[in-house]
Amino acid sequence: MAGTHEPAANPAASRPLPKGRMEAFSDGVFAIAVTLLVLELEVPDGADLWQELAREWPAFLAYLVSFAFIGGQWVAHSTLTRFVRAVDGQLMRLNLVLLLFVSFLPFTTSLLSRHLDDTGEATAVLIFGLNLTIGAALTSALFRYAASSPELAADDFADEELRGFERERRLALVLYTAATLAGLVVPVLAVLVFFGISMLILIEPLVRSRRHRKASARE
Amino acid sequence: MAGTHEPAANPAASRPLPKGRMEAFSDGVFAIAVTLLVLELEVPDGADLWQELAREWPAFLAYLVSFAFIGGQWVAHSTLTRFVRAVDGQLMRLNLVLLLFVSFLPFTTSLLSRHLDDTGEATAVLIFGLNLTIGAALTSALFRYAASSPELAADDFADEELRGFERERRLALVLYTAATLAGLVVPVLAVLVFFGISMLILIEPLVRSRRHRKASARE
Amino acid sequence: MAGTHEPAANPAASRPLPKGRMEAFSDGVFAIAVTLLVLELEVPDGADLWQELAREWPAFLAYLVSFAFIGGQWVAHSTLTRFVRAVDGQLMRLNLVLLLFVSFLPFTTSLLSRHLDDTGEATAVLIFGLNLTIGAALTSALFRYAASSPELAADDFADEELRGFERERRLALVLYTAATLAGLVVPVLAVLVFFGISMLILIEPLVRSRRHRKASARE
Amino acid sequence: MAGTHEPAANPAASRPLPKGRMEAFSDGVFAIAVTLLVLELEVPDGADLWQELAREWPAFLAYLVSFAFIGGQWVAHSTLTRFVRAVDGQLMRLNLVLLLFVSFLPFTTSLLSRHLDDTGEATAVLIFGLNLTIGAALTSALFRYAASSPELAADDFADEELRGFERERRLALVLYTAATLAGLVVPVLAVLVFFGISMLILIEPLVRSRRHRKASARE
Repeated sequence: MAGTHEPAANPAASRPLPKGRMEAFSDGVFAIAVTLLVLELEVPDGADLWQELAREWPAFLAYLVSFAFIGGQWVAHSTLTRFVRAVDGQLMRLNLVLLLFVSFLPFTTSLLSRHLDDTGEATAVLIFGLNLTIGAALTSALFRYAASSPELAADDFADEELRGFERERRLALVLYTAATLAGLVVPVLAVLVFFGISMLILIEPLVRSRRHRKASARE
Repeated sequence: MAGTHEPAANPAASRPLPKGRMEAFSDGVFAIAVTLLVLELEVPDGADLWQELAREWPAFLAYLVSFAFIGGQWVAHSTLTRFVRAVDGQLMRLNLVLLLFVSFLPFTTSLLSRHLDDTGEATAVLIFGLNLTIGAALTSALFRYAASSPELAADDFADEELRGFERERRLALVLYTAATLAGLVVPVLAVLVFFGISMLILIEPLVRSRRHRKASARE
Repeated sequence: MAGTHEPAANPAASRPLPKGRMEAFSDGVFAIAVTLLVLELEVPDGADLWQELAREWPAFLAYLVSFAFIGGQWVAHSTLTRFVRAVDGQLMRLNLVLLLFVSFLPFTTSLLSRHLDDTGEATAVLIFGLNLTIGAALTSALFRYAASSPELAADDFADEELRGFERERRLALVLYTAATLAGLVVPVLAVLVFFGISMLILIEPLVRSRRHRKASARE
Repeated sequence: MAGTHEPAANPAASRPLPKGRMEAFSDGVFAIAVTLLVLELEVPDGADLWQELAREWPAFLAYLVSFAFIGGQWVAHSTLTRFVRAVDGQLMRLNLVLLLFVSFLPFTTSLLSRHLDDTGEATAVLIFGLNLTIGAALTSALFRYAASSPELAADDFADEELRGFERERRLALVLYTAATLAGLVVPVLAVLVFFGISMLILIEPLVRSRRHRKASARE
């Protein structure tokens, strides 16, 4: 689609492909995974709806955490492809592995929401935490691979932006790992930390954007 | 994908991103949420199909209302991104929160259709109404944020068009709020008003387009 | 996304919108509806798999008919938007109504497959046939609306191509209507005709393309 | 969407269409099929989660094989459309048939995972294997059709790249056919081979990319 607009491809080193389809396929998987989460919520049948919905709190909490995680990963992914001019087979492969863990999340979310207050809790939290941690690690790996490939990296962005994004990704990875490990001791704590991180990812740009705006206004 | 066509980004203020991926991801979530609604419809098993389908009227009514709502929100969303040249982290965050309520709708629709004629009716209508109202409010917020950001707003449209869209959004929000409140007293009334509003949103452009056409013809 | 490439919009008559998002949203709904069909197929649990799968023939037949129908409608839709330069509110509204019937098809397909050999057969075939007929009629309406709007119609195609497409759409509509009516008398006949039409729609371009190729070769 | 950027269409031979919508629709079906696979995984309810998850190994194995297969087919498909400048009705029809087998895969995957250790195993493996083999054959057919149509083939790539892709496709087809036939004798062996092939498809570009990098470094 974007083929005719990309810089003329060198036929000899023809591996770099337009990035349009990788973006479209990834957007599709992110959008479907995030929307399928709703199918895991059970519609109560009884008369006292409020009470039954309240009893479903683990499902709603898990839903929110996973929605925020996928949303945050998608924001990171779309920032990442901003830094990229073209893709190659390796980037596509890494991306597929990332999407494997994204599309697996409705399963681990369901596992979490069904066992958040029974004896399987620690196991469910660990599996869910590993899913988030591996997902975050793959986004970082994707980014490092792209940044280190001169024929893939775009060049119309500032170095500080790149470093800011890298810092953000590293922080997310450290936090997810820490929370997953903490979950081995106090499972619910891990879920709350996951929720906090995801909210942070979503809300942080707002704060930065406000600060940037004020800075612009002062100039 | 659209990166190379956007006006050259200023590396110092590099937050504004191409809008293509936000559009693609949103289109995905809207399209999936609207299509998943069909999974909530139960296929009758018995012999007298017509009678059993007729008994399912709450499910069909809820399906139509939600389809029209998501369709209307999608039209508003695609008009909105017409007014936008680029996106930033804050717009993406707001958009994700909007999509959270869009992708949650299959759940509240199912809640509504299952309780539209039992004792949970008032509760189900209230929750469904809040979902629609918050969704409409978030579309308005998204629009206000974009319109107030000089580095995001596009400039190839008439001011009166912008004001027309703003008026439309405000009217929708007032009507959804009023209907949700009315639903606390007469639940079914709220559903009928929701249906009316959604139909209005879908049909209104037709009327305006006819009027515009006649005006053009007279010139 | 395509905004900057469209011919400069006249701010006074700003209704015509870029067609990119209508295409993306429609592609999404067509793709999801066609893929959700598979969820209606039941995986047999017993030991004699071949026999159990054979007993499920109505489900497989209905699956194939609906897949071919949605596929054919999608081909028609993507040809249709080829004839269109921009969209307006009315076209979007008509398109949403078309998508309503496309995304409703998994339900009527399931209805058909569950009642194809019991007493609900005639009813199920009628409802399924109406779904196909109304869908085909809406595609035609969409096309007629676009063709009659000078500010929407593209102009880089031959008139004969336009008329060929129109003829094709009219024929499809006549056949679907006839088959649905025939189904009131002999239900299974209608299903076979639906299947035949869908196959025709899919295979016809192949025949025409071959003929065109031979003609080119003779030149 | 891409209409205005394509080389000016010859009105007389107007069959070739922009490829954008075929890519978008295909990306949608691939993305949905790959994400729907997760719905086939059962969330265990009991207390000993690890043991119950371990008992579900056929489902996880089938999930991984199908994910890798669809992922690999999608990579092949996006490479394929790189070789294509425009599409015609025949290519769209072939593509729809390919997508039929892609979107059918969640069903045959579920069949496989439910019968991988009971008496239906051989049948399930055969049906699953046929699904993969026919899918791979259709991708090859799509490619051969495009490569043999001068008005469709793009011309900004090296011949050796084309031949490399052709070789890769032929190898995949031979392996899938061999594994399916082997499965008639030792069913589980076929599944392991399918898994191996899919992994190979995904990992092979990584190896080649590394080699290419080293070669570039030596220059």
